Amino acid sequence: MTFAATILTLYPEMFPGPLGVSLAGRALAEGKWTCDPVQIRDFATDRHRSVDDTPAGGGAGMVMRADILARAVDHALEARPDSPLLAMTPRGAPLTQARVRQLAAGPGVTILCGRFEGIDERLFEARPIEPVSIGDYILSGGEMGALVLLDACIRLLPGVMGAPDSGDEESFESGLLEYPHYTRPAEWEGRTIPEVLRSGDHARIEAWRNAMAETDTRLRRPDLWERHEGARAQSPSGARRQKKER
Amino acid sequence: MTFAATILTLYPEMFPGPLGVSLAGRALAEGKWTCDPVQIRDFATDRHRSVDDTPAGGGAGMVMRADILARAVDHALEARPDSPLLAMTPRGAPLTQARVRQLAAGPGVTILCGRFEGIDERLFEARPIEPVSIGDYILSGGEMGALVLLDACIRLLPGVMGAPDSGDEESFESGLLEYPHYTRPAEWEGRTIPEVLRSGDHARIEAWRNAMAETDTRLRRPDLWERHEGARAQSPSGARRQKKER
Repeated sequence: MTFAATILTLYPEMFPGPLGVSLAGRALAEGKWTCDPVQIRDFATDRHRSVDDTPAGGGAGMVMRADILARAVDHALEARPDSPLLAMTPRGAPLTQARVRQLAAGPGVTILCGRFEGIDERLFEARPIEPVSIGDYILSGGEMGALVLLDACIRLLPGVMGAPDSGDEESFESGLLEYPHYTRPAEWEGRTIPEVLRSGDHARIEAWRNAMAETDTRLRRPDLWERHEGARAQSPSGARRQKKER
Repeated sequence: MTFAATILTLYPEMFPGPLGVSLAGRALAEGKWTCDPVQIRDFATDRHRSVDDTPAGGGAGMVMRADILARAVDHALEARPDSPLLAMTPRGAPLTQARVRQLAAGPGVTILCGRFEGIDERLFEARPIEPVSIGDYILSGGEMGALVLLDACIRLLPGVMGAPDSGDEESFESGLLEYPHYTRPAEWEGRTIPEVLRSGDHARIEAWRNAMAETDTRLRRPDLWERHEGARAQSPSGARRQKKER
């Protein structure tokens, strides 16, 4: 199955861009995914091809019009009725590896890229759009977020990654950061690879890696650690309690 | 002053890529920033130009070698001793708008892009590298993260954004999501713009926008809301307590 990416944007020339190189580029050439950028201005209704207007209530910048975007969105929904429709916006839900995995397992994705100050809020009320944010910082537009989202999905498509099992032990897949990596040379600038990794004792290596993943998550990302511990505390007893309540 | 971006990467052809278009592209053409991708393989020491090796302790994929990366990093540090040195990795600290603002106010940034399973951990112990993550998902490499980081910085450089004050009222700048936007048409598919925004009463409009930013943050991003409330609770009394303790 081919993963179909449709991107609604004012800058179609940004796609595939960096996704035309390396793993994603090879996968594109092999037909494992398709990249279909759509120019939002093609859905404008005046001869200036306007897509934005000044913010109601005043303020800096411009706002993307609901009526024009709805025309672009409806066109995409008709062409790809099975594809989830996402909009990249800092007001969206933070992107997670779990959501990436779901999307990558589906038929594709349609992504609306916001620009300027944002998108008229009525569009989100009137159309089935999932607002998504790639992080708590401000970008010049949704295009960079769309590239990130697509890169995350594409590497999970069947046959795209070199090693079939790299992807399973990585950061966030288990709700933890990944353990630290080492490779040759065994000694570098007086620093050696941790002894356990040279022991050949696979059980000890796995235990060490799990312990390191936990330690690093606790120290570097207390937010992730809390969520992880919360989920672990809930999973056996929480499930039992739910059963009892029935 | 020109903001100098140096990117250590296996895929220099990805840069400036999407940053060569739109706002960032114009700023690049005007010399407001420079884009200097550096091929890590140029610092390899064998005729195959190897930069990676198998993971110590076993496992899938390849790990980037500390010795080769250190040569590339040292070269960049010598060329740009004032620039902060960042590495894009899912094990890094989450990128924030505050960090973006600091970086944009400085002379530039040097970004090391990880690939494969990751980077030999000893590099982070031996060199002054700030590990940064753009979000809790896995990308095919650090390049996409570098593009995101640069885009976030470039839009803040003097003279890059059209309106000098767009950038102040946006999501995360206040620790909250941004309020919702509306623009013409006043009525669309039976949906109207909230009445207050058409009132012309600027105090009421500001109050409504603040209330909406708070409500949306509380509902959509309880994590941000908690941090915001925590910071607010600490700022007056916490500062006073610190003074007393001295």
